[in-house]
Amino acid sequence: MRHPARIVPLAFLAAVTVGTLLMMLPAARAEPGHAPFVTALFTATSAVCVTGLAVVDTESYWSTFGEVLITVLVQVGGIGIMTMATLLGLLVSRKLGLSGRLRAQAESAGLISGNVRGVLLRVAGSLLIAEAVITAILTLRLRLHYGYPWGRSLYESAFHAVQSVNNGGFALYPDSLTRFVGDWWMCVPLSLGVLFGSIGFPVLFELFREWRQPGKWSTHTRLTVWGTALLSVGGFAVFLVFEWSNPDTLGGLGVATKVLAAFTQDVMTRSGGFNSVDLGDLNAETIAVTNALMFIGGGSASTAGGIRVTTFLLLAFVIWAELRGEPDVVIKHRRIAEETQRQAITIALLGVALVATGTLALVWLTDGVEFDRALFEVTSAFATVGLSTGITPNLPEPAQVVLVILMYVGRVGTVAVGTAIALNTRRRKYRYPEERPLVG
Amino acid sequence: MRHPARIVPLAFLAAVTVGTLLMMLPAARAEPGHAPFVTALFTATSAVCVTGLAVVDTESYWSTFGEVLITVLVQVGGIGIMTMATLLGLLVSRKLGLSGRLRAQAESAGLISGNVRGVLLRVAGSLLIAEAVITAILTLRLRLHYGYPWGRSLYESAFHAVQSVNNGGFALYPDSLTRFVGDWWMCVPLSLGVLFGSIGFPVLFELFREWRQPGKWSTHTRLTVWGTALLSVGGFAVFLVFEWSNPDTLGGLGVATKVLAAFTQDVMTRSGGFNSVDLGDLNAETIAVTNALMFIGGGSASTAGGIRVTTFLLLAFVIWAELRGEPDVVIKHRRIAEETQRQAITIALLGVALVATGTLALVWLTDGVEFDRALFEVTSAFATVGLSTGITPNLPEPAQVVLVILMYVGRVGTVAVGTAIALNTRRRKYRYPEERPLVG
Ligand SMILES: [K+]
Ligand SMILES: [K+]
Repeated sequence: MRHPARIVPLAFLAAVTVGTLLMMLPAARAEPGHAPFVTALFTATSAVCVTGLAVVDTESYWSTFGEVLITVLVQVGGIGIMTMATLLGLLVSRKLGLSGRLRAQAESAGLISGNVRGVLLRVAGSLLIAEAVITAILTLRLRLHYGYPWGRSLYESAFHAVQSVNNGGFALYPDSLTRFVGDWWMCVPLSLGVLFGSIGFPVLFELFREWRQPGKWSTHTRLTVWGTALLSVGGFAVFLVFEWSNPDTLGGLGVATKVLAAFTQDVMTRSGGFNSVDLGDLNAETIAVTNALMFIGGGSASTAGGIRVTTFLLLAFVIWAELRGEPDVVIKHRRIAEETQRQAITIALLGVALVATGTLALVWLTDGVEFDRALFEVTSAFATVGLSTGITPNLPEPAQVVLVILMYVGRVGTVAVGTAIALNTRRRKYRYPEERPLVG
Repeated sequence: MRHPARIVPLAFLAAVTVGTLLMMLPAARAEPGHAPFVTALFTATSAVCVTGLAVVDTESYWSTFGEVLITVLVQVGGIGIMTMATLLGLLVSRKLGLSGRLRAQAESAGLISGNVRGVLLRVAGSLLIAEAVITAILTLRLRLHYGYPWGRSLYESAFHAVQSVNNGGFALYPDSLTRFVGDWWMCVPLSLGVLFGSIGFPVLFELFREWRQPGKWSTHTRLTVWGTALLSVGGFAVFLVFEWSNPDTLGGLGVATKVLAAFTQDVMTRSGGFNSVDLGDLNAETIAVTNALMFIGGGSASTAGGIRVTTFLLLAFVIWAELRGEPDVVIKHRRIAEETQRQAITIALLGVALVATGTLALVWLTDGVEFDRALFEVTSAFATVGLSTGITPNLPEPAQVVLVILMYVGRVGTVAVGTAIALNTRRRKYRYPEERPLVG
């Protein structure tokens, strides 16, 4: 194939189209009649791109068939993005003749040389196992503690487990997980599922084989693990400290519940899309940090979005090296390729441009929406997080279409751009004389 | 000198310290007693860093002596930053053994080899001539059209002419230039003065010698001129279109006045700091664009701030080259040095980090300030623009100190960081093996 990077946009476009048509079936809707086009388009895009933003209340608007459709679309989207991003990553490393550990690992496991089936089975297998474990725990909890019937317990548990591992973000409750804010048996499994899905298959794969020997990890795994740890601890501390005495969020809760809620919100912010406190009540400073965490997102080749943890941490290393006057960017005795640095910069700056343009469009198309709320919703869409301050259902249709475009571009754009850049760089035939304009 | 890049931060620190002490003299204040420390510190920093943000109303709070002090501090700051940035730019190009046209130009004019006096005289001369011309026009206008006495006309004209050319942004009227919104004789000279000051000395110098032969311009001049033209036309169009029918800004004005007001606001936004329409009444989308324009700022080695037009345009070229798969970034048959690209990226990302942190700090330190207003004020301070939605005077003192730090870092940071990076890059002794983590 001449342009393998185009697979992802095309595959997702096809899935969104089919999903929209299915969501427009009268059977998908709870009330008589079928869902309007934009509602179906928005819901299908949000599901396939594992975002979780919603223009209607999921439980009351859609029928059980509609909810199952959403589950299937989320599952297809989650497995799809993880498989395709992993395969493209392997393709890039084969094309560039790399000799990193990730490649060596993949080779020894027979994953390289375009073994699509091997990757797909491993990705789907690991996601489904995680979903089964979480479903089991939640079912028991809903049955034994809340007294739901077995059938309903299983149905709701499976729905939310799929959402969790695929970082889908749809919930059957209008207030997301708010009712479970102090319930460790609900929040911890769902949070761990989100974390699992947001790490990315290449890292999961390497951790599975070498979790005992962190000294042997590839730079990619190292960056992802440390970046995730850093952002998790940082985000947790920020939520806990900034919201500790906010009466509308953590203020009225006991200390243990505060800790749980801060942990849950932190994990969900970088891509999960559930929330166990009302986001509209967060302090302005917490909202600002939430925006930043959403924008950074999760791991590469995962069900999470954003510019990716590796991109963020890599850029931090680039700046640090630059400020120290180091000619190379070195992480643990490994030099980061200059092409990779430029790729990271391109993705980050295009992300900023996209969020800025999207926010501008949203504000322009919507009367009276506040700038910070528009920024939040746009960041959430771009990073396929799905958190909302509640404005999405009331936006005019053109603004909802802007969010649809952002979800789609946010989902496929970083992967496609990253791969295209890595694969298509032309050979240099001649060089022009160098010049150094002043900057700064 | 071992670390020439440190000159700028130290010189500005000294100027701010002296300025603060002078502003605390009882003679500087209109009422009895002396100004409180934070008020004096804020005003002195704002003046020396040619920002124009104010915690008090300039005309009623300060005595005539105080206003003269502000004028002197702005003049010192403007000449200082332009001279020092130009000298450091020449130092960098000498150290790196460049052979660009800027260097050739400078050499033939005897500006190289540390000719401090030559640069200083040329900078001061060009600024003072521009100020004299503007003062003359404004004096005639205030005397003949508004009927002010000659003395007052001259005083007010000189004050605003100095502010204009140095991109100072302080005004003797509480509503800035709002009262002159339709007055071409006031707005055009003040806008042209701001443009003149914001282009940067190296470009002015080259344009002065070779304005007839754009084909011979250095890449730096090319980037600055085209970037400025692009942003000016774009900003003008945005102001005109977005505000055309806003009853609180351009809506009630005639077509000619609308054009003048959009032109003035566009020029002022990228660093001037005056405003002829009330910024609190702008649409949210105009505010968003204003933020972006402020952040980008003006030319290198000018009295403007921001990350600089060259940095912005260079990054656009970097992304464009990356998306097209070009191995080099080429502008008109000149390859941009990779060090320069990395420098631009570092400055832009540090700018984003600084604005984000500053906004967070402001929101955290101030009860009830809206996120978008905090972002606006912080961007304005970082880019030493001086536009305000009006919140600065009412901020608590710690938040005002945050703005002081942002003005100072925004003024000296980009210059110092850029120079330090260019001068201090270490030689490479050995290289580690390369690795390419996945990004995106
Ligand atoms: K999500
Ligand atoms: K200014």
